[in-house]
Amino acid sequence: MDERLIAENLGRSGSHLLFAGQDVPALAVQYGTPLYLMDEDCIRARCRTYRSAVEAFARPGRILYASKAAAFLQMFRIAAEEGLSADVVSAGELYTAYKAGFPMENVWFHSSNKTDEDIAFAMEHGVGLFIVDNFEELEAIERIASERGTRQRILLRLTPGIDPHTFDAVATGKVDSKFGFGMETGAADQAVRRALAAPHLLLGGFHCHVGSQVFDSDVFLRSASILFAFMAKVRSQYGYTADQLDLGGGYGVRYLAGDPIPDYAASIREIGAHIDALCQGFDYPAPEISLEPGRSIVGDAGLTVYTVGMVKRIPNVRNYVSVDGGMTDNIRYALYGAPYTVLPANRMDEASEMLCTVVGRCCESGDVIQPDVMLPDSTCRGDRIAVCTTGAYHYSMASNYNRLPRPPIVMLRGGTSYVAVRRESLDDLLQCDQ
Amino acid sequence: MDERLIAENLGRSGSHLLFAGQDVPALAVQYGTPLYLMDEDCIRARCRTYRSAVEAFARPGRILYASKAAAFLQMFRIAAEEGLSADVVSAGELYTAYKAGFPMENVWFHSSNKTDEDIAFAMEHGVGLFIVDNFEELEAIERIASERGTRQRILLRLTPGIDPHTFDAVATGKVDSKFGFGMETGAADQAVRRALAAPHLLLGGFHCHVGSQVFDSDVFLRSASILFAFMAKVRSQYGYTADQLDLGGGYGVRYLAGDPIPDYAASIREIGAHIDALCQGFDYPAPEISLEPGRSIVGDAGLTVYTVGMVKRIPNVRNYVSVDGGMTDNIRYALYGAPYTVLPANRMDEASEMLCTVVGRCCESGDVIQPDVMLPDSTCRGDRIAVCTTGAYHYSMASNYNRLPRPPIVMLRGGTSYVAVRRESLDDLLQCDQ
Repeated sequence: MDERLIAENLGRSGSHLLFAGQDVPALAVQYGTPLYLMDEDCIRARCRTYRSAVEAFARPGRILYASKAAAFLQMFRIAAEEGLSADVVSAGELYTAYKAGFPMENVWFHSSNKTDEDIAFAMEHGVGLFIVDNFEELEAIERIASERGTRQRILLRLTPGIDPHTFDAVATGKVDSKFGFGMETGAADQAVRRALAAPHLLLGGFHCHVGSQVFDSDVFLRSASILFAFMAKVRSQYGYTADQLDLGGGYGVRYLAGDPIPDYAASIREIGAHIDALCQGFDYPAPEISLEPGRSIVGDAGLTVYTVGMVKRIPNVRNYVSVDGGMTDNIRYALYGAPYTVLPANRMDEASEMLCTVVGRCCESGDVIQPDVMLPDSTCRGDRIAVCTTGAYHYSMASNYNRLPRPPIVMLRGGTSYVAVRRESLDDLLQCDQ
Repeated sequence: MDERLIAENLGRSGSHLLFAGQDVPALAVQYGTPLYLMDEDCIRARCRTYRSAVEAFARPGRILYASKAAAFLQMFRIAAEEGLSADVVSAGELYTAYKAGFPMENVWFHSSNKTDEDIAFAMEHGVGLFIVDNFEELEAIERIASERGTRQRILLRLTPGIDPHTFDAVATGKVDSKFGFGMETGAADQAVRRALAAPHLLLGGFHCHVGSQVFDSDVFLRSASILFAFMAKVRSQYGYTADQLDLGGGYGVRYLAGDPIPDYAASIREIGAHIDALCQGFDYPAPEISLEPGRSIVGDAGLTVYTVGMVKRIPNVRNYVSVDGGMTDNIRYALYGAPYTVLPANRMDEASEMLCTVVGRCCESGDVIQPDVMLPDSTCRGDRIAVCTTGAYHYSMASNYNRLPRPPIVMLRGGTSYVAVRRESLDDLLQCDQ
């Protein structure tokens, strides 16, 4: 048992790392590096786990793929084939879904700052609903729907005044967010009144998103309790019964061997049971429950492969291993200090005895992929290095800093591979230059 | 005197902000937002200041524009017209220079991790020289030059074992860098021996880069002293006299009203005098001195203009002002906590009495442009917000996170404006998708 193999789709054959059963160094030769690999079978399996879990709800629930984790045509196609809905946060994500042939009634539009152009564009393309974040947006949607002579379905995004992680009463900081209508400030109540009074808005219900890298159901259960209490109050005050309740996203993935192994299905069963109890307790008709997983659908379906360019040993100070990508394709350590499991893809059979910092090729000291990594002492220029769990927030956050082309996304499926997003060319870098 | 106007190219006309003498809200209407403005006259003036300063050296020096600060066709054209050389850090930057018609003998190739493909590509395109960072690269250039039957000019990048900021003897941390050959570890000495012994390498001299956001000449003087001592030692040991000495970049720009007002010309005069003294002291023939300004050429020639989407006031907690860009076009606060001067571009005549955090539109709590900004209390959706000093490391670090198109770069010149980099379209976002 090699504990470096933190996911089921990682394996070893002699000195070589396997991903989705395929030889990683061979894929690096075939497609070049840096290279994003994605395991389509893993993505589809995760979609099915989620979907079947919410289908067991009293009223079948909805899974929206949070596409900001990784938004490209083929990913929308896969999500659509697996019967998922999608949450998008911009006209660009919505347009990508549209071009992928995604059923637009199943596309929901998030974002704390939608422009008038975004709103009109989304309506033109038949967006399912807007998750309204603030009063300016509420007014803009009412106005634009009125101009178009339609009635637009919306949810209201609420910010609980109670910390759902601890259930502590009103930690003030918890309302310190750019997102949503505060429940304790009265903004949520005011938003409900305005939405119900707006002739071109159809209030479907409420949304709440509270966590990130969450491994159990606690935070969802607590959010649901808070939301149901609010919904009951709204019902008694305004006679309005919500038809939809969106509990947001936040399920985590394993970056390190020490991270918990999540059981999404079990967690969602707990959510379903809790919702049943809340409906019964409040005598509330079961709303459609939706969840918005992003990271947990694509995170460990991704692996980044690099080629080593130099190994610099500074005696008694530090060893540097530099790879041919960096903060351009993975900015998460530089930005958040995010942890990663780093593997010597062509030296899996050697002892990893060199403590080193794996750095990127950008001309910037902060371009670090991961500090304090153990790699074989023989690591040298030309070796392949793999970074695990890079399916979410890597391609989607990639830049052309240092004028580096963005890597391709190669999908692995049933022992075969294909290009889902091609590598940028040097001419692509110039396409907007006049 | 409005102290918010931190640069000479900022001004005010009634309620409107002026940049390079032009009306910023009017430019926002004309070109849309988010919008990068760049002041071409300011860029050219800065190029001339630098160039004339080093022309006064005993042996005329060279100014290389560090293009990673902002690399696009028109910027290379301007730098070439102003007689600057360019330092590039990738095949992408080199290719951009090439397509701009930049004289390739004046393009020098940096980077701590050049692939074999980068090296061959640069030689094919007639690169002036390589600034060699490590032993792997030294061997690769020798091999590829040999295959091509040429002799390649190089400089060696050295990492001083003395802290040039304080002149303290050997603070170990100062050699803790992925860049260059350590001087105290013996690596620099070894690199000189190998370079001199390599039949297809022509050692031109040395390079050293030490600071960032530097406002005086101290750090350059100290670096020069360290490098001259090394060069004198190398001359006595190996009989090799360096022809070129590159002192790197690092001159700062003003982000806040409290930052010093730099006098680049005066600083460079001090460097020239110091080099003269060193040549005399070591009886060393004057090498060609080069400097690599990037940020200080384009930094305060840039201004980003946004439109406000929402103002969220959370009583006793915080006010949020959300704009239609964010960490996608300016990641520097999220990444480094970088400070900025933020201006109400269409309310310059109002008192700024609202303390707020200016945030971006990305679905991420960390998408902050700047906390603790003072803006007028009347700020509302549709207002224009300007962020100063965004010419360097903004466009070049931009991403499509949340599938947001990157803003255009509009150049301002003598009262007119033109598009240097066009806005990305939604279709551009899909161009690599299969």
